[in-house]
Amino acid sequence: MIDETKARNIIEPKVLKGFRDTLPAMEIQKKAIISKLETHFSSYGFVPIDTPVLEYTEVLLGKGGGETDKQIFHFKDNGEREVALRFDLTVPFARFLAMHQNELAFPFKRFHIDKVWRGENPQKGRFREFTQCDFDIVGADNAAADYEILSMMDSSFSLMGVSDYTFYIAHRGLFNAFLEHLEVQDKSVDILRTVDKLRKIGNDAVKGLLVDITGSEDKALKILQFITKEDESESFLSTLHRLSDLSGHEIEHTQRMEKIYEYLTAANIEKHFVYDPSITRGLDYYTGIVYETFLTDLPNFGSVCSGGRYNDLASLYTKEKLPGVGSSIGLDRLLAALEELNSPILKSGSSADVIVFCLDDQLRSWYDSLARTLRKAGLRCDVYMLDKKIGIQFKYAETNHIPFGLTCGSEEFASNTVTLKNLLTRETHKMIPIEDAVTLIQRN
Amino acid sequence: MIDETKARNIIEPKVLKGFRDTLPAMEIQKKAIISKLETHFSSYGFVPIDTPVLEYTEVLLGKGGGETDKQIFHFKDNGEREVALRFDLTVPFARFLAMHQNELAFPFKRFHIDKVWRGENPQKGRFREFTQCDFDIVGADNAAADYEILSMMDSSFSLMGVSDYTFYIAHRGLFNAFLEHLEVQDKSVDILRTVDKLRKIGNDAVKGLLVDITGSEDKALKILQFITKEDESESFLSTLHRLSDLSGHEIEHTQRMEKIYEYLTAANIEKHFVYDPSITRGLDYYTGIVYETFLTDLPNFGSVCSGGRYNDLASLYTKEKLPGVGSSIGLDRLLAALEELNSPILKSGSSADVIVFCLDDQLRSWYDSLARTLRKAGLRCDVYMLDKKIGIQFKYAETNHIPFGLTCGSEEFASNTVTLKNLLTRETHKMIPIEDAVTLIQRN
Repeated sequence: MIDETKARNIIEPKVLKGFRDTLPAMEIQKKAIISKLETHFSSYGFVPIDTPVLEYTEVLLGKGGGETDKQIFHFKDNGEREVALRFDLTVPFARFLAMHQNELAFPFKRFHIDKVWRGENPQKGRFREFTQCDFDIVGADNAAADYEILSMMDSSFSLMGVSDYTFYIAHRGLFNAFLEHLEVQDKSVDILRTVDKLRKIGNDAVKGLLVDITGSEDKALKILQFITKEDESESFLSTLHRLSDLSGHEIEHTQRMEKIYEYLTAANIEKHFVYDPSITRGLDYYTGIVYETFLTDLPNFGSVCSGGRYNDLASLYTKEKLPGVGSSIGLDRLLAALEELNSPILKSGSSADVIVFCLDDQLRSWYDSLARTLRKAGLRCDVYMLDKKIGIQFKYAETNHIPFGLTCGSEEFASNTVTLKNLLTRETHKMIPIEDAVTLIQRN
Repeated sequence: MIDETKARNIIEPKVLKGFRDTLPAMEIQKKAIISKLETHFSSYGFVPIDTPVLEYTEVLLGKGGGETDKQIFHFKDNGEREVALRFDLTVPFARFLAMHQNELAFPFKRFHIDKVWRGENPQKGRFREFTQCDFDIVGADNAAADYEILSMMDSSFSLMGVSDYTFYIAHRGLFNAFLEHLEVQDKSVDILRTVDKLRKIGNDAVKGLLVDITGSEDKALKILQFITKEDESESFLSTLHRLSDLSGHEIEHTQRMEKIYEYLTAANIEKHFVYDPSITRGLDYYTGIVYETFLTDLPNFGSVCSGGRYNDLASLYTKEKLPGVGSSIGLDRLLAALEELNSPILKSGSSADVIVFCLDDQLRSWYDSLARTLRKAGLRCDVYMLDKKIGIQFKYAETNHIPFGLTCGSEEFASNTVTLKNLLTRETHKMIPIEDAVTLIQRN
C-alpha cells in the first residue's frame, strides 16, 4: 500500500496529533451554539473584537515562562522574529487593552470566541487546537460588574438547554487575607495550586502537600478547614460570614460579596450559586470573586466555565490600572457535554430543510426556480445536482438528514404544481401548489 | 520612554508586521456580513466544515514549493515535525476530501469562512493574516454545478448591497485547446501566468513576455488576439462561438458553456455575466470555467471573488477522481470595498439598541430588571456599570453608537414607568410604560 502510494506520488492525507477536522453535522451544531451565544452576549451590550492568532512570543509569555512556555507553539518566522500561537484569549486581550485603551469606551464589555493552541499531550476530549469563549468587563471594579458576568453566565447556560448546573463561587480576597493572617502569604502561589487540586486528589493528599509547603501541620489543617464547607446545607451568606470571620473581617470583600448576592437574589437566580470556599483557581492573578461551573447531570465532567476578577491583568503592558472581571467557556467541552446530555439545543445537523430531486434533467431551470421560491420563504433548499436514479438521490437526502423532498416531473411542470414527500414518514402530497408545500414544510 | 518602560518591567504592547487587531465597530460589521453569507450559503444546502489551522508542511505544500514555499509560515513543532499555517482553504479542503470521502454525501457542497496566513510583504489593504470565504461543489462535473456556484455568487453580491458588479467568465478548456492547437501547450504554465497579468501590465508588456516564452511573434500575437474581445459589445455567446472556432471546435466545452448561459438566462441573472477571454487565472489546476469579479463603482479595486472548475484537485492525496467547482471571496477586501461604497449593509456598529443609565445606584436591581424586559423583547440592552455623572454616561453611549437611553430615577421607580431619550435627536418621552418604550425603540 505504501509502495503503491509512493509510486503514484500521492501524499498521505493526515492531520497532526491532537488536531482534527470537523465534519458538517458537528460543525453545523457548533456554529449554531456560537451564534446563539454571540446573539446572547450582544443582547447585554457586549461587543466582539479580534486579535491576531500569531503574536511576539515575548508579548504572549510576559513574565510567565515555566509551564506555559513548554506548552505553546512558538518558532522563528522568516524575519527571524520569535513568534507564537496564542494559548488563550486573555493575554492577547490584556495586550489589546494596553494598545487601544484610548479608542475604547470604558467600562469595556467584550466577548471573543475563537481558537487557541496548546502543545499539551492530547487526552480523551482534550485537543491541541480548541475553541475558547471569553467574556469580560474591564474598567469597573464593583459588584454591578461582578454580578453582570455571573448573570450572563447563568442565562447562557439556561439558553444552552442544560437542565441543571451550579456555579461554585468564592472570594479570592478573603482567602488571600486568611493566608496573610496565617503568615504564609509568601507561599500563596504554591498553596493556590495545591488547593486547586482538591477535587482531583482529595483531602488527605492536599493536606500532605500543604504540610510540605507551610512546614506546619497546624497551618495545613487550618487551610484545609478554611476551604471546607461546614456541611452541605450551609447557606451562601453563612459560609461567607464564617470565612469573613476567619480572615479577620475583611469588610470590603465581605460587603462586595453580600451586594453580589443581593443582585443575584433580586434577579431570582441565586439558587444556581453556591459559596464554595475550595474554589480558589490555580492562577495567581485573581483578586476578587472566582468561580467554576459544574453540570449536575455530569458531575465528573469537570468545570465547563470558569473565571474571576483580576484587577491588574494589563499591568504587564501599561501603567494604567484596568480592573477586570471575566469568564471563559471551553466550547468544545461544552459541546461534548451537550451531546452527552442529548440537549434539545442540538438539532439534527441537517444540511437543508428540503431538496428538489432531479426527475428530468431537462427541467433543471424549473427546479432552480422552485428552489428560489422556497429560499425566499426562508427555507434552506438543496437541488440534487446530478442526473441519477432516484434511489441514489434519496440516499443523498438521508445522509444529509434532509426531512422533505420535492419529486416533480413533466406532469407537475405542466400543471405548475409540486409533489412533496416527507422523507421520514414517506407521506406524500401529490401535485399541490408550491405555496402549500412551503406551509407543510414550515409547519414541521 | 524606553528606559522608563524597562525600569518598570513593562512589555511594549505591539503586534507583528502585517497583523492587526480588529476593534469592536469593525468586528461587529465583519461578523454581520459573515453571518449573512453563512445563512445565505446554508439556504442553498451548503454545509460548513472546519480544518486545523496547523498542518504537516508536506501535506500543505504537496508538489508545490517555489513561490508558495517562501510565503508560508512554517516551523518545527516541539515534536520536531515540519508544520505550517494554512495559506488558503483549498488545499486543506482537498486533504479533507481525501480523508473523509466515505463519510460525506456527494455531490458535497461546503463553505468555509476563516483565516489564512501568508508571509508576503504587507501592502496597503494586504495583510499576512486575512479571512477567506470559500464555497465549492465536489462530485458533480456538469453545467448544473457550474451554474449553482455562479448563481450563489450573484445572489451573495446582491445580498451585500453592492449596486453593480460584473462576473468576468471564460472557459479554461477552450484556452488549453487553443494552446495545443498552437503547439505551445508545454509552456502553458508560463503563458497562463503572463496572460493573468494583462489587467496590471497592459497589452504591450504581455505581448513582449509571450514572444519570449513562445519564441514566436506570430504565436504571441495569436494568443493576444485570443484573449482580447472583438469589441466591448460582443455578446456572451458570440465571444464563446468565436473562441470555440479558434480552439478547433471543442464541442464539449462549448456545449457546457452554452448550457450554463441557458441556466443563467432562465434565472434572469445573465446580465451580470460577461464572457471575457482574458480571464485565465494564473493557477495551473483549473480545467473548466474560470471567473473573476469586479465592482463597477470600484474598477481599480481588483477582483473580490474568483475561482473556477478544477477536476483533479484532490489527486495529490487520493486515487479517487473528485471533480470540483468553487469560488473564493477575499472577505477583508470585500469589507474594505463595502466601506468605500458606503454600502447600506454596513450598520452603525452600535454595541446596543438601548442603554439603561444609572441615575441612582440604589436602583441597580430595578435597572437590571428593566434590561431583562428589553432583552426579552429582542432588544440589545446595556446597563451603565458605574455610579458616575450623567455626562460621562452619555459620552459612553455616544462612543458606542447606542441610539436610545433610559433615564430613570426614584420617580419612575415609584410609578413603575421609564423615561426614554433618543440620544441623537434628544427627543424625550417622560414616564411612559416600559412596553411603550419597547415599541418606540423597535420602530426606529
